[in-house]
Amino acid sequence: MTTRWDHRFAQRTQRMTSSAIRELLKLTAQPDIISFAGGLPGPALFPIEEVREAADTVLQQHGRKALQYSTTEGYPPLREMICRHMARYGIVVDINNILITSGSQQALDLIGKVLINPGDKVLTENPTYLGALQAFTMYTADFLTVPMDDDGLQVDRLEVALRSGPKFMYLLPNFQNPTGVTMSLERRREVIRLSDHYGIPIIEDDPYGQLRYEGDHIEPLVVIDARARDCHEKGQFTGSVIYLSTFSKTLAPGLRMAWVVAPEEVIRRLVQAKQGTDLQCSTFDQMVTYEVGRGGFIDRHVQRIRKVYGEQRGRMVQALERAFPDPSLGVRWTHPQGGLFLWLSLPEGFDTADVLREAVKEKVAFVPGVYFYPAGDQRNSMRVNFSNATTEQIDEGISRLGRVVTRLLERQPAAV
Amino acid sequence: MTTRWDHRFAQRTQRMTSSAIRELLKLTAQPDIISFAGGLPGPALFPIEEVREAADTVLQQHGRKALQYSTTEGYPPLREMICRHMARYGIVVDINNILITSGSQQALDLIGKVLINPGDKVLTENPTYLGALQAFTMYTADFLTVPMDDDGLQVDRLEVALRSGPKFMYLLPNFQNPTGVTMSLERRREVIRLSDHYGIPIIEDDPYGQLRYEGDHIEPLVVIDARARDCHEKGQFTGSVIYLSTFSKTLAPGLRMAWVVAPEEVIRRLVQAKQGTDLQCSTFDQMVTYEVGRGGFIDRHVQRIRKVYGEQRGRMVQALERAFPDPSLGVRWTHPQGGLFLWLSLPEGFDTADVLREAVKEKVAFVPGVYFYPAGDQRNSMRVNFSNATTEQIDEGISRLGRVVTRLLERQPAAV
Repeated sequence: MTTRWDHRFAQRTQRMTSSAIRELLKLTAQPDIISFAGGLPGPALFPIEEVREAADTVLQQHGRKALQYSTTEGYPPLREMICRHMARYGIVVDINNILITSGSQQALDLIGKVLINPGDKVLTENPTYLGALQAFTMYTADFLTVPMDDDGLQVDRLEVALRSGPKFMYLLPNFQNPTGVTMSLERRREVIRLSDHYGIPIIEDDPYGQLRYEGDHIEPLVVIDARARDCHEKGQFTGSVIYLSTFSKTLAPGLRMAWVVAPEEVIRRLVQAKQGTDLQCSTFDQMVTYEVGRGGFIDRHVQRIRKVYGEQRGRMVQALERAFPDPSLGVRWTHPQGGLFLWLSLPEGFDTADVLREAVKEKVAFVPGVYFYPAGDQRNSMRVNFSNATTEQIDEGISRLGRVVTRLLERQPAAV
Repeated sequence: MTTRWDHRFAQRTQRMTSSAIRELLKLTAQPDIISFAGGLPGPALFPIEEVREAADTVLQQHGRKALQYSTTEGYPPLREMICRHMARYGIVVDINNILITSGSQQALDLIGKVLINPGDKVLTENPTYLGALQAFTMYTADFLTVPMDDDGLQVDRLEVALRSGPKFMYLLPNFQNPTGVTMSLERRREVIRLSDHYGIPIIEDDPYGQLRYEGDHIEPLVVIDARARDCHEKGQFTGSVIYLSTFSKTLAPGLRMAWVVAPEEVIRRLVQAKQGTDLQCSTFDQMVTYEVGRGGFIDRHVQRIRKVYGEQRGRMVQALERAFPDPSLGVRWTHPQGGLFLWLSLPEGFDTADVLREAVKEKVAFVPGVYFYPAGDQRNSMRVNFSNATTEQIDEGISRLGRVVTRLLERQPAAV
């Protein structure tokens, strides 16, 4: 009388790939390891005191409301605050264009739920954010990929891909996860032109947009699209871009507060899906987020985050230059202008999963790049996070990584 | 250059029925209405001060942890606390059998995600919880129903239904939403026997189990199943019942804290699904819930809730007896021993959606029963909530409802 469950699980779960990653990442969770594996904000920057005061105020002044059920769409003052924030970035929308989600991960899930029919193709950058692959895979999407270079998506390769009719494009134009690369303005314009020409909508995922450490802000796709459509006024937001952002990197990820900006008809459908998915986000966390942010604190706080992360990024680039002084080894890395990650590539033929096994022995960790490729076919790169390590850890960790990689490269000079 | 989205939405969203309900429930949201429509706990009972102190403690002592990402499975001390709580109800499990979810609604969504293939049949009580229908419908389940009476599911009708091979049974044995009816112990045993005989697993949804106002506690299905399997010891929890419960009714729904109890292999699959769905629940809310509950506060608080809701239930039954003194009118209602709802039935041929339109004019509201029937084929009942109204509102609201219903019944005496 033992029940076996394995044959009962739905077909869609057969595609779930996360267990391999989880096993590998367990290696990186040892206490004495210097881990560049996560995508975690630095906890030293969390505004604990501000959140504490906000929680206190919310419960003292609006306790019954904060602990009760509320609407699926999200707490109206928080959505209004987000509208004002978006307007400063040129995204002019009203409260009916905003849905609060439990992290951007939930936005990806809900988008998969309302847009993807089994077998639909989703176009992504190659590589792309692992969490998006996980979310869309559950709705049995197939992936169509377009390669990247230092200016982001190679738009000259985009048109061919669009002709095969993807349901939508999923793009991370700013400081992409995992590569750290930013899409140039010219390419953004071309993406919008092609999106319109072929009638293919865009999911623009922008978790790091505010975390720019050098160079000028580049207009998001959603703004370029809206301007082209002349729907750039309040109450008229239509267009073919669904824009995602989050408080996870500018306030704190533990509160799971993110948002979707979309045309009203899309928001209505997402709201219906969210009703059946989890009814609503935490009323309390929404009210606390609003209370922390309403006086402009988050914007001031972002200045501080930028300064610290910018220094950590610089420190990591310097450490890499010291660790890999010989360009003939063929180790390359991106130079992100913002975000949390840079992307390190070894010569073709090397497998960074093997590198990770060696690196863990030296007490340093990263995420092998293979997981970010929908086809899982490129194994010679790695994602390295610089936001959740001290400058000393960055120096020491990259130095160790340099020793491990150099040793492996010298052992297998003709690895291809 | 206008983008139309309506033709882009996935087929599964065509089944979403919530907009009709939402329109109807908007009627009930007028400020001066006495609404028995929601399933809201009474906010006067929220332990605001305890949550405030807990939030303060958590942020002062563990601020960095509370605001950071954490594991998908949930905060370990909270899961341990839930294990201890479960053990008192005879459910002996360890931390690997527990997943924290964002309300039980998310548990239903994740269960749909990992178990339902398109076209799979799900067996439910008829009527059943609307939110489960919404969740499972998104995974294109079909529904197979078994009628209820005053002792819950009519188990003599269950066997025929099980022979047609549902993927699982979804059952609410305690104070069911919407009917308030409780399944007898004999029937529970028979359900487990049939589940085992036909190899059909059970989702046991138990949001109200602790809210019993009279009569004796009846063992949950999960305990009867575990005992039959002799897997009733720590670390050996297998069996074919997935058990759901929540802090929404005993602490506060605004924190969205609920849990799943299941065999480890099921939890692992649900965790993988949750990773792609929203990564994790709010770290902060999990730690606050643990901090509020760890000293035994929630159990003491439940005593108070029971007393208040029990009085409200009694008051509502009395008010109904006054409002419908003439049994020949054919108005019947259930006598729930716990939970938040009772269920009122009019003679066949009456449509409670029509009644609601009239009732709203008299400033009283409820939920028409039709939404709780998967086939949407029974229109003469209504769900009435007693937890979110004062005794004065109960007296006045039921009196108004009595006038409206009596008038309609007298107008259409031979309505069938």
